[in-house]
Amino acid sequence: MSTPDVAIIMGSDSDLRVMGEAAEFLESLGVAIEVSVVSAHRTPDRLFSYSKEAEDRGVKVIIAGAGGAAHLPGMVAAICPLPVIGVPIKSRNSIDGWDSMLSILQMPAGVPVATVAVDGAKNAGILAAQILSTAQPELRKKIKAYKADLNEQVLTKVERLEKEGWKS
Amino acid sequence: MSTPDVAIIMGSDSDLRVMGEAAEFLESLGVAIEVSVVSAHRTPDRLFSYSKEAEDRGVKVIIAGAGGAAHLPGMVAAICPLPVIGVPIKSRNSIDGWDSMLSILQMPAGVPVATVAVDGAKNAGILAAQILSTAQPELRKKIKAYKADLNEQVLTKVERLEKEGWKS
Amino acid sequence: MSTPDVAIIMGSDSDLRVMGEAAEFLESLGVAIEVSVVSAHRTPDRLFSYSKEAEDRGVKVIIAGAGGAAHLPGMVAAICPLPVIGVPIKSRNSIDGWDSMLSILQMPAGVPVATVAVDGAKNAGILAAQILSTAQPELRKKIKAYKADLNEQVLTKVERLEKEGWKS
Amino acid sequence: MSTPDVAIIMGSDSDLRVMGEAAEFLESLGVAIEVSVVSAHRTPDRLFSYSKEAEDRGVKVIIAGAGGAAHLPGMVAAICPLPVIGVPIKSRNSIDGWDSMLSILQMPAGVPVATVAVDGAKNAGILAAQILSTAQPELRKKIKAYKADLNEQVLTKVERLEKEGWKS
Amino acid sequence: MSTPDVAIIMGSDSDLRVMGEAAEFLESLGVAIEVSVVSAHRTPDRLFSYSKEAEDRGVKVIIAGAGGAAHLPGMVAAICPLPVIGVPIKSRNSIDGWDSMLSILQMPAGVPVATVAVDGAKNAGILAAQILSTAQPELRKKIKAYKADLNEQVLTKVERLEKEGWKS
Amino acid sequence: MSTPDVAIIMGSDSDLRVMGEAAEFLESLGVAIEVSVVSAHRTPDRLFSYSKEAEDRGVKVIIAGAGGAAHLPGMVAAICPLPVIGVPIKSRNSIDGWDSMLSILQMPAGVPVATVAVDGAKNAGILAAQILSTAQPELRKKIKAYKADLNEQVLTKVERLEKEGWKS
Amino acid sequence: MSTPDVAIIMGSDSDLRVMGEAAEFLESLGVAIEVSVVSAHRTPDRLFSYSKEAEDRGVKVIIAGAGGAAHLPGMVAAICPLPVIGVPIKSRNSIDGWDSMLSILQMPAGVPVATVAVDGAKNAGILAAQILSTAQPELRKKIKAYKADLNEQVLTKVERLEKEGWKS
Amino acid sequence: MSTPDVAIIMGSDSDLRVMGEAAEFLESLGVAIEVSVVSAHRTPDRLFSYSKEAEDRGVKVIIAGAGGAAHLPGMVAAICPLPVIGVPIKSRNSIDGWDSMLSILQMPAGVPVATVAVDGAKNAGILAAQILSTAQPELRKKIKAYKADLNEQVLTKVERLEKEGWKS
Repeated sequence: MSTPDVAIIMGSDSDLRVMGEAAEFLESLGVAIEVSVVSAHRTPDRLFSYSKEAEDRGVKVIIAGAGGAAHLPGMVAAICPLPVIGVPIKSRNSIDGWDSMLSILQMPAGVPVATVAVDGAKNAGILAAQILSTAQPELRKKIKAYKADLNEQVLTKVERLEKEGWKS
Repeated sequence: MSTPDVAIIMGSDSDLRVMGEAAEFLESLGVAIEVSVVSAHRTPDRLFSYSKEAEDRGVKVIIAGAGGAAHLPGMVAAICPLPVIGVPIKSRNSIDGWDSMLSILQMPAGVPVATVAVDGAKNAGILAAQILSTAQPELRKKIKAYKADLNEQVLTKVERLEKEGWKS
Repeated sequence: MSTPDVAIIMGSDSDLRVMGEAAEFLESLGVAIEVSVVSAHRTPDRLFSYSKEAEDRGVKVIIAGAGGAAHLPGMVAAICPLPVIGVPIKSRNSIDGWDSMLSILQMPAGVPVATVAVDGAKNAGILAAQILSTAQPELRKKIKAYKADLNEQVLTKVERLEKEGWKS
Repeated sequence: MSTPDVAIIMGSDSDLRVMGEAAEFLESLGVAIEVSVVSAHRTPDRLFSYSKEAEDRGVKVIIAGAGGAAHLPGMVAAICPLPVIGVPIKSRNSIDGWDSMLSILQMPAGVPVATVAVDGAKNAGILAAQILSTAQPELRKKIKAYKADLNEQVLTKVERLEKEGWKS
Repeated sequence: MSTPDVAIIMGSDSDLRVMGEAAEFLESLGVAIEVSVVSAHRTPDRLFSYSKEAEDRGVKVIIAGAGGAAHLPGMVAAICPLPVIGVPIKSRNSIDGWDSMLSILQMPAGVPVATVAVDGAKNAGILAAQILSTAQPELRKKIKAYKADLNEQVLTKVERLEKEGWKS
Repeated sequence: MSTPDVAIIMGSDSDLRVMGEAAEFLESLGVAIEVSVVSAHRTPDRLFSYSKEAEDRGVKVIIAGAGGAAHLPGMVAAICPLPVIGVPIKSRNSIDGWDSMLSILQMPAGVPVATVAVDGAKNAGILAAQILSTAQPELRKKIKAYKADLNEQVLTKVERLEKEGWKS
Repeated sequence: MSTPDVAIIMGSDSDLRVMGEAAEFLESLGVAIEVSVVSAHRTPDRLFSYSKEAEDRGVKVIIAGAGGAAHLPGMVAAICPLPVIGVPIKSRNSIDGWDSMLSILQMPAGVPVATVAVDGAKNAGILAAQILSTAQPELRKKIKAYKADLNEQVLTKVERLEKEGWKS
Repeated sequence: MSTPDVAIIMGSDSDLRVMGEAAEFLESLGVAIEVSVVSAHRTPDRLFSYSKEAEDRGVKVIIAGAGGAAHLPGMVAAICPLPVIGVPIKSRNSIDGWDSMLSILQMPAGVPVATVAVDGAKNAGILAAQILSTAQPELRKKIKAYKADLNEQVLTKVERLEKEGWKS
């Protein structure tokens, strides 16, 4: 198995519903990933060993998603030196995502987490690719193609709207 | 040095301003305490060793205070089996205490943190004493005396208000 | 009937939907409980008598759940010297749980309520067990077994994820 | 001493800073008042006796102010049948008044508290006078005079603004 | 038709779903009411004439419910000298009731609105009855009976819970 | 006196501190304005007459600023057909501006208020000028010059920053 | 095709569900409109060209709706000198509309956006008509007729309520 | 002048107070930076040209700070393919930072901004270094040394606390 460039972890397998979007995006760009469950609160030992070993295993970016009092992204960032992207998840017990968001975003000086929107796993995937692309021109090209495609999709809709009128 | 019954820890020594109230209250009741700094984000190894050893060292209750994305109380509760009391601190970079509060309170099922009010370190001290008092009748008496005293202080003010009128 | 170690009370029988999780957890650990309804607003006399008699009846910890302007946990804590655990309930008329949460958490200095997450009754049960376990080594063992089991469950999922891949 | 028509109570004498405005307004209208401290959390017995006796003592309206997890107005309303006006106070430990506000306003069906603005003690006084005035034509006249005066004060400012220009 | 003691008005007939509870409660106590629609924003002239004439028509208390930027209760209170009870309604376009609540509650000094909980129309009805009862001993008795009944209902549930156990 | 094109009104003369910025901007562009105080809550008659007469007096746009439960902009918009710009003011009793903001912004369908940022009176002035400029090419030119000037000011700072370095 | 007086744009064609109400209202008044999709984030070039050309194409008012981190209205306002009306949309990924609302409303001094209620596209349409009507007496008449109609609709409901009683 | 690896831009030079921390950190690690002002709202042309040229000029990461309706980070991310780090700034007119935070964080799928804590410019600098370090082993070493130093600083405080006691 090839070393993954991006590790996608989450606090519970029920978060796969959201976090799968990061995995899909990265795979669509040909980035090597691994997907796993690491619970800061239920498997603290695994949190430590996983975070400590990630760099040596060759992982370059970690994406961590969690809900409620979401400690996973911040704790991974505390333990390992890699850039960590945090995805606040609006889980069943979250207060509309506010707790997840603030628990991940408001990290103290010294230990950043690159936070994306609530349930914004796809953007976490894109951001990971952008990070890798700072040293991979091929990946940069793919990101630019993706952005061009986003642009194209909207323009197509604009045309259709112009042709068919807004009432259709 | 006697084994501390209650360990009071905080993410930064600047939190002593708030957390000192817990220490003072417990000392006033004769409870053996220790006070230290454990930063979940800057000293994750210490977080682990401290949390793992606390029970064996004889600690019975842990009070943990932290601000912003406050992960200390929840991570201690994840690692050790003791009851953990969390104090959200309205630190300099906190958004009016909302981030500290939600990061400590909204723990997932399985790993509770007994959360008190924002900056409510004194109540954390009282709660720790109440916990110990479930098996220490002498301490229960002191808590009841404390509560009687609170009551008395208000009644004294009521009397003065009645005598002097509300305008004074 | 054996004296209950933990009393679980709530403002309305409709809260049993949430509070039942505390009862179930404690029973699964063999802790003697009682479950009842005490409404601070509709049965204030019962609130007083219940809170005043709890200690003498041998109760060691009280878990109180309530929604909206949730006064039950704080008033019980005002009247009796036992540790009180508060469960904010996202009831039908609550504003997403914010009112329940703040009404229970933000107690003034002198009268703590050990607050858990919104609808976090299971954690209230675990916390009550942790409190009792400060003087009951047997219960401590059970709590540690419970935590070990939580850990194990996640590791099993990790393995399955590794075997079957994240897309399954 | 004449029986007070309006009882103004508050959780702490430090609340007099705010609650004094209710007393001043009512006295300016010649309404008989009493002002006292009743702490739901520190003097629960007094809360009960005060609330139970108020009606028999001839009190007609109760104004209760409190901050943080503000239980005083709601508990008085639970115990006594009189109309209760609640004043949320932005006390030192309150989260910008949100906790005080929600703890007083969000009462369950069956037990209303007539809530006014945060720190809105003057309006509590006016509201108490309006309530009494439903059966006291003389008091109604005074309220109308007060409202006419408010109107007049603004019109005077309008005139001055017109004469002197907005830059002065 | 007998003069109504309480006028219940609302910004839209779709609010009847909520406001009907105030009407039902007051009718169950034999209080004479009227129910109508007055929109501050769509019928400002009616707002003025209705508010100006209410006192002369013999109305003693006004209950006004509205959602979103809810101006009805405050504007009625600005125009007429009667006590005005405001009911914030979580209407279709409201942001979870926050806008309705703050628009009604946060009135400036001089013009109070007695605000009840979001969608708390029943409590508005009870509060109106309490206000009238300050001069109507018969109504006071009915309110006390209502409160006794609330108490009784809970005690019945307590008994059933004790007999049947919490699992049933 | 020339007929004012823009009327700037506010609930209290203490709001001039904020609302003066709208007046200053419009005067700097040579737009005829009038500035006055209209309190929805203290001078409801004036609110009505002012709003009813504005159109006939030749006013084209109304800017209304208010704080707390800010009803002025919405009520003016309800009564008169002119475009109304609302300025939420963070007044002394406002909850950080949230109440002012929501009371002005969340108007029901049928009665819009063009809301600007909290304390954003200058933007209210600019917006009024933009509205007038839809039919006044001269004014449009001035607005474009203003925007060009904003742009220029930043570019000057960019240059200085480049020359002097960011540490100066 | 006649030059549109009002351009209605939105970040995504899924916003048509909301924004269609603005288009319908303006068409019902005979105002010439165009409806299109301009995404600030996915089609930044189109954002620029569209905003730069709007004035020269004869557009007089722009209505822009967007959700989440809603940058479209503010960026259009930055680039073009026309009055811009912003509609915060409670899109699928928005946090109850708070993010959309604040992203549009809280523009810095110099660049206003006339913000309406969350999902308040109809009011955006009315506001655009009000703006145009400052120079179009015919349109002013239609707006007044619309307001009179709103008034009439409520009065009809009042009558029916009076005839049929509130219980029907 | 060497090509900067990291461009630090902000909406106003008054943001330097906050953003300077990112510059200082990166310089302390020997990373080549440039610092400039780019206002999305006042200099939209510069926003476009700056964002379009950044990649070709060799910039690898962009840090963008802004307050209020903070559109700068998101618009830069829309235009250029580089990873963009956003710093929400609690500027004078911000509502406690909530508007800045949500305007930057809640980006739609397709266009991520790596958001850090409110006023968290230092963390933005660290994150930029972490991103570069995915391809620069020397920089990785410095980051690890920085993290070790953070850890050391806390341990020194722990020792002093143990020696001198918590009261000093």
